[in-house]
Amino acid sequence: MSGEFDLIAEYFLPLAGPEGLGFLDDAACFSSPEGQDIVVTKDLLVEGIHFVGDEAPASIAMKCLAVNLSDLAAKGAKPALYWLGISVPKDKPGDWVGHFASGLKAMQERSGIALAGGDTTASLGGITVSITALGYVPKGGMLRRTTARAGDDIYVTGTLGDAALGLRVVQGALASDAYLAERYRTPTPRNSFGEAIRTIATACADISDGLLADVGHIAIGSGVCVRIEEKLLPISDHAADAVRQSPALRHLIYSGGDDYELVFTAPKPMAGKISSLANAHDVAVTCVGRVEEGEGVRLVDPDGKLVQAAKRGFDHFSNT
Amino acid sequence: MSGEFDLIAEYFLPLAGPEGLGFLDDAACFSSPEGQDIVVTKDLLVEGIHFVGDEAPASIAMKCLAVNLSDLAAKGAKPALYWLGISVPKDKPGDWVGHFASGLKAMQERSGIALAGGDTTASLGGITVSITALGYVPKGGMLRRTTARAGDDIYVTGTLGDAALGLRVVQGALASDAYLAERYRTPTPRNSFGEAIRTIATACADISDGLLADVGHIAIGSGVCVRIEEKLLPISDHAADAVRQSPALRHLIYSGGDDYELVFTAPKPMAGKISSLANAHDVAVTCVGRVEEGEGVRLVDPDGKLVQAAKRGFDHFSNT
Repeated sequence: MSGEFDLIAEYFLPLAGPEGLGFLDDAACFSSPEGQDIVVTKDLLVEGIHFVGDEAPASIAMKCLAVNLSDLAAKGAKPALYWLGISVPKDKPGDWVGHFASGLKAMQERSGIALAGGDTTASLGGITVSITALGYVPKGGMLRRTTARAGDDIYVTGTLGDAALGLRVVQGALASDAYLAERYRTPTPRNSFGEAIRTIATACADISDGLLADVGHIAIGSGVCVRIEEKLLPISDHAADAVRQSPALRHLIYSGGDDYELVFTAPKPMAGKISSLANAHDVAVTCVGRVEEGEGVRLVDPDGKLVQAAKRGFDHFSNT
Repeated sequence: MSGEFDLIAEYFLPLAGPEGLGFLDDAACFSSPEGQDIVVTKDLLVEGIHFVGDEAPASIAMKCLAVNLSDLAAKGAKPALYWLGISVPKDKPGDWVGHFASGLKAMQERSGIALAGGDTTASLGGITVSITALGYVPKGGMLRRTTARAGDDIYVTGTLGDAALGLRVVQGALASDAYLAERYRTPTPRNSFGEAIRTIATACADISDGLLADVGHIAIGSGVCVRIEEKLLPISDHAADAVRQSPALRHLIYSGGDDYELVFTAPKPMAGKISSLANAHDVAVTCVGRVEEGEGVRLVDPDGKLVQAAKRGFDHFSNT
């Protein structure tokens, strides 16, 4: 692998916005736009935990940036800047970082975010990628998880369970399916749609740990009960095929992570407006339930019978 | 180790400022103070590279935060917020994270910075800590590495080489010396002094990779030659003893990393003012050379003979 300074100059500097000061100062300097709040999110992704490690480096990069963009989407924030920390074993081939950077570039071009700085170091273990992403929302206008209200409808974007099933495909536990594998490897953060529903939705989260877990954050934060109807959950044809093959994996539709779709709540009269925005942004949006007085998350069948109550989100230090 | 959510609630939430929104939203939201620029820096610290790994967890935490605070000090920025990403092997004892958090708390109390969010994950390898730190400076007033001028004096804070010699102590290559070991383990970022010289210094950097390497960034960025007199370099009694024991390690005074002192340039007429500020902030400050027309870094002996020309900074992917 080339030297650290060469890597930075060759691969990362071309991704930088003016806020990075040409990386000459080891710090970014900028001011926030008038009338805007700053929204910051951070995710650390670790080889063997968040990605397998043998993916194409561009694919790892796209996923790492997409995960952070998805957090901004869930806040209705416009992506602006990100900082990249990357720790890579010395024995990676010389062009690994170049391919990684090309993945960042592709995801930047989709989202309008720019690199503002970071840190590149060697690693004695696997790859670790840390991204801190910053976006803007009009003052006081950040979408939150704590503001759902009883009576609201609950919506999700896209289809559910594809990524968790895709991981099983990648691991060889399910028959090959390029669509599902790609949904696992390269999430599509819903930034433009997240910005569009910022003043319409009452609460929003992105689905990183599974629908029930993530909607659970809304239920707990808002002090409400979220009731989801299993039969309404949108699934892709590929996911339906996979679940037919392996019925025991059906629960991944609502408990599988990594989809990076949005789940949001909105008052009933907003249904038409949401449908128009879905069309305008070319995103499928499905009403999957409603918010009620009470607490917790209830997944119910067509007879209203409880299929599953929510656990908390994926826990990195749980042994169960 | 306890569950991830319990760890966050028990240890990290008490460190958070209001900008973290009680960690209910997985994002921070805040606005920058009127008339201020935002300065952001990021460092990734990896077990086996930046710390040995068997240090007390509080010590690792203090160092990781200190390194980022030192970057803000070099910009003259007032520390405000930081985001923490930490990846920890599951088999660490249950109270490891608690002790780590106590180190963060101690360093927060010294600097006034507050936690605003982050991410806690398991690791299959060693410990990785990623910190993104944010500070404020009056608009247009960030201290830079690119603005030194021929004729300026060059100053350093504190003493040099202690940390690099301290690492040899920790590794058993030098006789036990608690002072040097502590200088390696727990750097003292020079934040209040950095803020104080913001309008007086022409350029500034912190010494993370060794004096010659870091002053090299000033030389390259500013398009000047930096001439440093070896006999002027401030060293502690402990470092002097260590170098007497092992004369071959003398070069660590100017090429050893991890001191996290500041090196800055200022016009000659500022000497008196700098001396007063050094007294006021209880920081030793020493003039070690001057800025000249030309390029590069020259370390010279009392006869003006070249001792060493600068290499570039520590390179994580260099094999030499």
